[in-house]
Amino acid sequence: MKEANLLDGRLVAHQIHRETMEVVQKLRQHGVQPSVVFIRVGQFPPSELYVRMKQKKAQELGIKSQVISFAEDVSQNEVLEKLYQLNQDPSIHGILVQLPLPSHLSEKEIALAIDPKKDIDGFHPINLGKMLLGEKDCFYPCTPLGIQELLKRYNIEIEGKEVVILGRSNIVGKPMAALLLQKSKYANATVTIVHSFSQNIKEHCQRADILIAAMGKARFVTKDFVKAGAVVVDVGVSRVADASSHKGFKIVGDVDFDEIKKIASWITPNPGGVGPMTIAMLLSNTVKAAELSLFS
Amino acid sequence: MKEANLLDGRLVAHQIHRETMEVVQKLRQHGVQPSVVFIRVGQFPPSELYVRMKQKKAQELGIKSQVISFAEDVSQNEVLEKLYQLNQDPSIHGILVQLPLPSHLSEKEIALAIDPKKDIDGFHPINLGKMLLGEKDCFYPCTPLGIQELLKRYNIEIEGKEVVILGRSNIVGKPMAALLLQKSKYANATVTIVHSFSQNIKEHCQRADILIAAMGKARFVTKDFVKAGAVVVDVGVSRVADASSHKGFKIVGDVDFDEIKKIASWITPNPGGVGPMTIAMLLSNTVKAAELSLFS
Repeated sequence: MKEANLLDGRLVAHQIHRETMEVVQKLRQHGVQPSVVFIRVGQFPPSELYVRMKQKKAQELGIKSQVISFAEDVSQNEVLEKLYQLNQDPSIHGILVQLPLPSHLSEKEIALAIDPKKDIDGFHPINLGKMLLGEKDCFYPCTPLGIQELLKRYNIEIEGKEVVILGRSNIVGKPMAALLLQKSKYANATVTIVHSFSQNIKEHCQRADILIAAMGKARFVTKDFVKAGAVVVDVGVSRVADASSHKGFKIVGDVDFDEIKKIASWITPNPGGVGPMTIAMLLSNTVKAAELSLFS
Repeated sequence: MKEANLLDGRLVAHQIHRETMEVVQKLRQHGVQPSVVFIRVGQFPPSELYVRMKQKKAQELGIKSQVISFAEDVSQNEVLEKLYQLNQDPSIHGILVQLPLPSHLSEKEIALAIDPKKDIDGFHPINLGKMLLGEKDCFYPCTPLGIQELLKRYNIEIEGKEVVILGRSNIVGKPMAALLLQKSKYANATVTIVHSFSQNIKEHCQRADILIAAMGKARFVTKDFVKAGAVVVDVGVSRVADASSHKGFKIVGDVDFDEIKKIASWITPNPGGVGPMTIAMLLSNTVKAAELSLFS
């Protein structure tokens, strides 16, 4: 039996980065240097790693980037003050506040404080609302956008298909549903969202032509959840103990890749699937913000 | 066989109106007179009727109301100017622009121009985005909110249930999904949205514990779409020719009420189901806006 084809996020992200770089070069010819600011709070190694990865890639593409690091005990007002400053600064096109934040800070208030035109993460409610309405003059969250783009580049048909999304987070599940429900060629899907309160989760998954697992539960989706020939996208990132690793843990997805690749038609590797796409869309959003700044 | 119980929107709306009236009286004791402005453009008899109904009910509840009627050929700028004026006016708590608008006006731009704090229709993208995020300090669209409230007042269990929504409009289907996906006792549902591009629509409907029909297709949902014991909510409003009526037409819903009431456990009459709830939530939102104005 033929194994599933890979939805190779690294490969597609590489293509997108090349396209982004071309836009950066054009913008520079128009005297615009796309630039992004990453804001970090405290010492959280995964956040430090993510910001480093994003910054490195931004630099490779010719996007100017800057990291502002606040101490763990920074006040809400200090962060807001900084955001207002960055909002005012016409040389800054994109602002990203790396989550999670320490619990004394309000992620909600901080998301609202970023100028929606610089909200390259697409987390401002006005950007999410516009996405739900099907509007285009806004920023969409990078993970759902990256998943749609990955499916699109592999010519996976989405229109009229059964999409089942596992998980209803604000950064993946809910915006993913909003995106694939839109009236467009790479959407128009029938969408079901299942989550921790759902019954018959397995049966829902078995209906899926496209199954998007975003619960963050290690290998929750086993072979018996998946219809033969389905497309399976794994967004999950969980740490599980692993004595054989020098770190003592390894990262696993929501999907039992080794078994499911035997029956799916397409599957994302994890790592190497959704993750690289998320960064690609973030930098593509940054350049979009720089382009839009020309018209405002 | 026992027939379905009625989800009596008129009755529940009446209760909600009484509660709203009590809040109006309290607000008056605090020196606040809740007030709403309805904006109409052109001569479109159904819009005139809707605005008249809303205004009449507002007056009954002690809410000050005012209708501003623009001529069919009003410019976008004139409408926006008026909105900015009303946004600035602290004595106005709610602003509603009756849709549809003539095609030379941009509904999108007009929705964005209403102060989100006065957006009692819940159509501003920032209010929709907050709804998607599960936030409460905002306004939810009146029809989905009215449906949730109707189910709640009849103690219909929603948590963990299969909800199938027919239709993905910006004013019903999509916000309805966002609302019933929220983490709360009267939500936490497994939600599927089907629409014109969906296949197997009937099979989806047959899975539904709660079926919400909002396509605007006269009697699209027939008995064979409905699981025995399901809860059926009919949002549809279609005109069909009717020689026996002096108007030459009658209003019918998306649901074949006479047949489906024989197998459903609960069903909305139509008219008398969702319609009255929508107006009740609109006026309840108006009073919420007046209350919030005390704290801003």
